[in-house]
Amino acid sequence: VTRRNIKLVLAYDGTRYCGWQRQKNALSIQEVIESKIAIMTREAPRLTASGRTDAGVHALGQVCNFVTFSSLSPEAFQRGLNSLLPEDIFIHGAEEVSPDFHSRFAARSKRYRYRILNRSDPDIFSRNHLWHVPHPLDLPKMKRCLSSLEGTHDFSSFRSSGSGNTNPVRRIHRAELTGPQGGLLYITMEADGFLRHMVRNVVGTLVEIGRGKTEEERFIEILESRDRRSAGFKAPPQGLYLVEVFYGE
Amino acid sequence: VTRRNIKLVLAYDGTRYCGWQRQKNALSIQEVIESKIAIMTREAPRLTASGRTDAGVHALGQVCNFVTFSSLSPEAFQRGLNSLLPEDIFIHGAEEVSPDFHSRFAARSKRYRYRILNRSDPDIFSRNHLWHVPHPLDLPKMKRCLSSLEGTHDFSSFRSSGSGNTNPVRRIHRAELTGPQGGLLYITMEADGFLRHMVRNVVGTLVEIGRGKTEEERFIEILESRDRRSAGFKAPPQGLYLVEVFYGE
Repeated sequence: VTRRNIKLVLAYDGTRYCGWQRQKNALSIQEVIESKIAIMTREAPRLTASGRTDAGVHALGQVCNFVTFSSLSPEAFQRGLNSLLPEDIFIHGAEEVSPDFHSRFAARSKRYRYRILNRSDPDIFSRNHLWHVPHPLDLPKMKRCLSSLEGTHDFSSFRSSGSGNTNPVRRIHRAELTGPQGGLLYITMEADGFLRHMVRNVVGTLVEIGRGKTEEERFIEILESRDRRSAGFKAPPQGLYLVEVFYGE
Repeated sequence: VTRRNIKLVLAYDGTRYCGWQRQKNALSIQEVIESKIAIMTREAPRLTASGRTDAGVHALGQVCNFVTFSSLSPEAFQRGLNSLLPEDIFIHGAEEVSPDFHSRFAARSKRYRYRILNRSDPDIFSRNHLWHVPHPLDLPKMKRCLSSLEGTHDFSSFRSSGSGNTNPVRRIHRAELTGPQGGLLYITMEADGFLRHMVRNVVGTLVEIGRGKTEEERFIEILESRDRRSAGFKAPPQGLYLVEVFYGE
């Protein structure tokens, strides 16, 4: 029997879950998928993901991997899991990877997207999948602030407490606001890594600037203060999507 | 104190509800809205809608009306209700109408739309808002069948049982399939009225024809048989939307 390492690429709607990571008294995405792999393999698998996502946050291309002694093909895992999993989790791809592949440590960068509906009326059908901001927003101001994040910075100001003592310096490859397209704004951030609530704290602060509640000049001051108490409002989870995780050199 | 008749135009996501109409042991849209009007008026209002919608069916432009002795303006009702109602119900408009306006009896015609996602992969974020049909569909066949419904017909074959003894003859002003647009098909039907489950029975039968499980010629035979046992599968509720109700001459 061979020890194999299987990598999954998956999408989920985070609405019903306490987030990616297993918790004692709440349903996590990790627990649901592990329980279905256990049915298929009769093993007790342990999934490693590229990173956690919080309660209510969604994924289009989360990546995880697990070790198994089963002889099932990756395609069989994909088909089997998709037939066992609830309708809000979908496995887009499965492949066998080298034994030392680790979804988190091997991730070179990640892309997140935040979706805002900027019009007076809400969209009742998308209420769990975007943030509805009914106020007029100064988009050029927001774009200028956002693009000032590109490059390498200490993001202490945009990190939420309870995130431990990890290095707060991150390199942002891309920080872009596009739209409006049918009332929708998309804030895309790609970086070598993200601190806890970093995208939501950036988006919340950007919206305060777009609404004119915070001066544009404050944005750089907040970033440079490296003080987590200086940032603005944290945007709600339901607008946030983990879009893609990049591997390789 | 004057007796006033208030008309509301509203949208709702039917996912959480047992349908429009009040039921003993389940939450209906009617009950939720009536309870909020009661808070605003201290009355016990009775809402009349253009017609019921079933559990899981949505509305973009349902119409209902209620009688009140309150002096609140229609705008105050709209604003107040939108602040009290849950996020899956939204009042698009409110106006005072003549005392004899009746949302059901005065309705001249209605437009329904059915939304199908026709591609192999599901869309986990829209799972409650469309019907996912992963099989290839012969759209020209489906379009021909659908357009044969335009005009006046006896729709007994496409009515579900338990619908009473109402006249099964309906006049279809429009029956149209559009798409695919990004994998989405839209089936639009406009008629002077609809029988119980009529759109879902038509759509279910059309999809069987599109998949090649039923011959195209059978569609007219089913219609002309006037036998409710002859129609095919009933499409699921979550793809159906009451789009608009038309009044006036």
